[in-house]
Amino acid sequence: MSSTGSRARPVEEHREAVRALLSDHLRRRAETLSLAEASGRILAETIRAPRSLPPFANSQMDGYAVRSADLAHAPAVGLVQLPVSQPIPAGVPAPELDPGSAAPIMTGAMLPAGADAVVPIEKAVPDAFYAPGERAGAVVGLPSGVPAGQYVRAAGSDIPAGAAALQEGSRLGPAQLGLLAALGIAEVPVYAPVRVLLLSTGDEVVEPGMELAPGQIHDANTTLLAASLAGAGAEVVRSRILADSPEDFLAALRQELGRGQADLVLTSGGISKGAYEVVRLALAAEGVTFCSVAMQPGGPQGIGSVDGVPFLGFPGNPVSALVSFEVFLRPALTAVTGIPSPRRTLSAVLAGDASSPKGKLQVRRGTYAGGRVELVGGPGSHLVHALAASNALVLIPADTEQVKAGSEVTVWLLD
Amino acid sequence: MSSTGSRARPVEEHREAVRALLSDHLRRRAETLSLAEASGRILAETIRAPRSLPPFANSQMDGYAVRSADLAHAPAVGLVQLPVSQPIPAGVPAPELDPGSAAPIMTGAMLPAGADAVVPIEKAVPDAFYAPGERAGAVVGLPSGVPAGQYVRAAGSDIPAGAAALQEGSRLGPAQLGLLAALGIAEVPVYAPVRVLLLSTGDEVVEPGMELAPGQIHDANTTLLAASLAGAGAEVVRSRILADSPEDFLAALRQELGRGQADLVLTSGGISKGAYEVVRLALAAEGVTFCSVAMQPGGPQGIGSVDGVPFLGFPGNPVSALVSFEVFLRPALTAVTGIPSPRRTLSAVLAGDASSPKGKLQVRRGTYAGGRVELVGGPGSHLVHALAASNALVLIPADTEQVKAGSEVTVWLLD
Repeated sequence: MSSTGSRARPVEEHREAVRALLSDHLRRRAETLSLAEASGRILAETIRAPRSLPPFANSQMDGYAVRSADLAHAPAVGLVQLPVSQPIPAGVPAPELDPGSAAPIMTGAMLPAGADAVVPIEKAVPDAFYAPGERAGAVVGLPSGVPAGQYVRAAGSDIPAGAAALQEGSRLGPAQLGLLAALGIAEVPVYAPVRVLLLSTGDEVVEPGMELAPGQIHDANTTLLAASLAGAGAEVVRSRILADSPEDFLAALRQELGRGQADLVLTSGGISKGAYEVVRLALAAEGVTFCSVAMQPGGPQGIGSVDGVPFLGFPGNPVSALVSFEVFLRPALTAVTGIPSPRRTLSAVLAGDASSPKGKLQVRRGTYAGGRVELVGGPGSHLVHALAASNALVLIPADTEQVKAGSEVTVWLLD
Repeated sequence: MSSTGSRARPVEEHREAVRALLSDHLRRRAETLSLAEASGRILAETIRAPRSLPPFANSQMDGYAVRSADLAHAPAVGLVQLPVSQPIPAGVPAPELDPGSAAPIMTGAMLPAGADAVVPIEKAVPDAFYAPGERAGAVVGLPSGVPAGQYVRAAGSDIPAGAAALQEGSRLGPAQLGLLAALGIAEVPVYAPVRVLLLSTGDEVVEPGMELAPGQIHDANTTLLAASLAGAGAEVVRSRILADSPEDFLAALRQELGRGQADLVLTSGGISKGAYEVVRLALAAEGVTFCSVAMQPGGPQGIGSVDGVPFLGFPGNPVSALVSFEVFLRPALTAVTGIPSPRRTLSAVLAGDASSPKGKLQVRRGTYAGGRVELVGGPGSHLVHALAASNALVLIPADTEQVKAGSEVTVWLLD
């Protein structure tokens, strides 16, 4: 007797079940990382500005810092002439500006006390700074009628101290990390990645790099799924369990879970109706559901939990494993962790005819370019070379059995 | 005298100059990595299949392996009855199939010599496998008229030994890594990442986590650019050069370059027309061009090479640095390395009015959602909080001075 129901589960129903499983049972842990390490992560707490940005009023231009009152009145002829005081480079405290004088000031340099505006160097006469040797007794001509605040970046005008700089749940990209750095914050609390115990089982699969005995094949799924998981922000703990019996498999899995290092268990293979399906035989008795989803490839699916840890079982062919990841696990990880890794969905013109099994979402592989998609390889779920030559998944809906060349189909871009 | 020409350089011209600089001068090095390490990298050589996939003919179904000739003739009534031989699990060599018998076979198991077709278990009577104890003398009923090759995955049907599996220049995503694993290949030659010497200069900038003296600000650019570069597949070597004079700066830079660890030098700040612009003062005499590009922010740009190593100088405000990276360096890195990191370009309806300086591409920050984009913050290039609150760059072309609310604008999504 099999735990597979006779009715195939709709794809949307299983997708929602996977999302709910992760949403309800994934433990979120926070960790504190340096800004460089935190790239791409999600903030675990709202961060408030420990200081204002800019921290002090500064100049937006290379030019002259002035008191606008000194330029209020236009002279009878020409420009207002002001004596030139000490220049203010960026990075040092600025001395107070004497009334009736103008201080050469560089972009980003602190506006001196007393000054309330900057005249850009291009508006001054002369329109270049005096060299150090020429500065004694120098005078600069500046236009009258300069408004207070001109070319001044006021302290706190980007963000005042105490305001929320980044909300909990924000993704830390270059701009967000740049803001934290500008605020002087060197490390931040972020959510730890989901730790996935990725299980490889079965006597017939052999690690890449090892020799094959007759009847054996190399394990593609662990590599394929590990790369997929890493791309969705998960941390992968690989494990290989060699167990002849379901009892041995369950005992070995429980030992792995006892270490407390896994937030999610993911297996591939061993869940169909064959006579040697160790994952299904071991876990069906533990309350894990093994069902048939109305999808091809990737129909057989396992879902549940083992010792309180969420469990997903994918079918064993590489294409089935990849399609299962894309259809079920990637969107669930994005929804639960907040790390964006959605696939770009496009409409494309199918280059040839295609047929699809009745009542099942068929997911084919194809090459997409310029609005057209061409199928690569057949529907067979073992065709990993054809998969590697594709850049898109082509979705043929459950209610469609024939698609004519020239029809519109939905594609998910894989790159 | 400044090396800045009076005519601003068009954005497209500078973008092409940056691409040409990297294309002509970036050294490509190869390295050999394990499959896990090679994720996201670009293949440095074409990989040929060391063996066929599948490596041996195997069953596509759980069912019975048969000689199709034994099922050629329909009996007068019912099914063809064949004695059941030893079952063939996956992972072991299959003994030759005796003529006139049927061997229970599992999905992926080796097709026995002599057999040329598989009948799925669902078509057999009984439609479940015999338990070990029931097998002695067991007989199975199978339909007649089974074509040779049915449900058999022929050896080499996905890829034959010796064929090109992946071309030089292929990006190694999950599917490509899965193919390499399936072929038994454990490590591959890939191009090494571009190594960028990311230089922070200037007395006024202080590392995040350190206290500020009056007039100082925290360094946002190193963090922002390092995250941007890493996201485009580059490897960042950070360095902080504190140098009072252009001569000291140049000497320190040459010492860094002497280590041979940098494929590209990137600085931010120190390139405008102010009186203390150490990068420009040090490198203009070395043949580096400092020009003004018709873009706001990000107008001042430096481009050239130092001791044979390509050099780019970005302006110092964080928004200017990010815009410079997005407009010039990101597309050049993608073009030269083959690592895809293009920005999604969309057309969006602008939520409010915007003005833009004549003759310059203005790049504003905005929040994009559902086909609309709203500007965030003003045009000021110091507004890093506003930048961090944005998810898009909004491009207002050089020939446009006013954009009315409701107009279509081009946006680049930042996430």
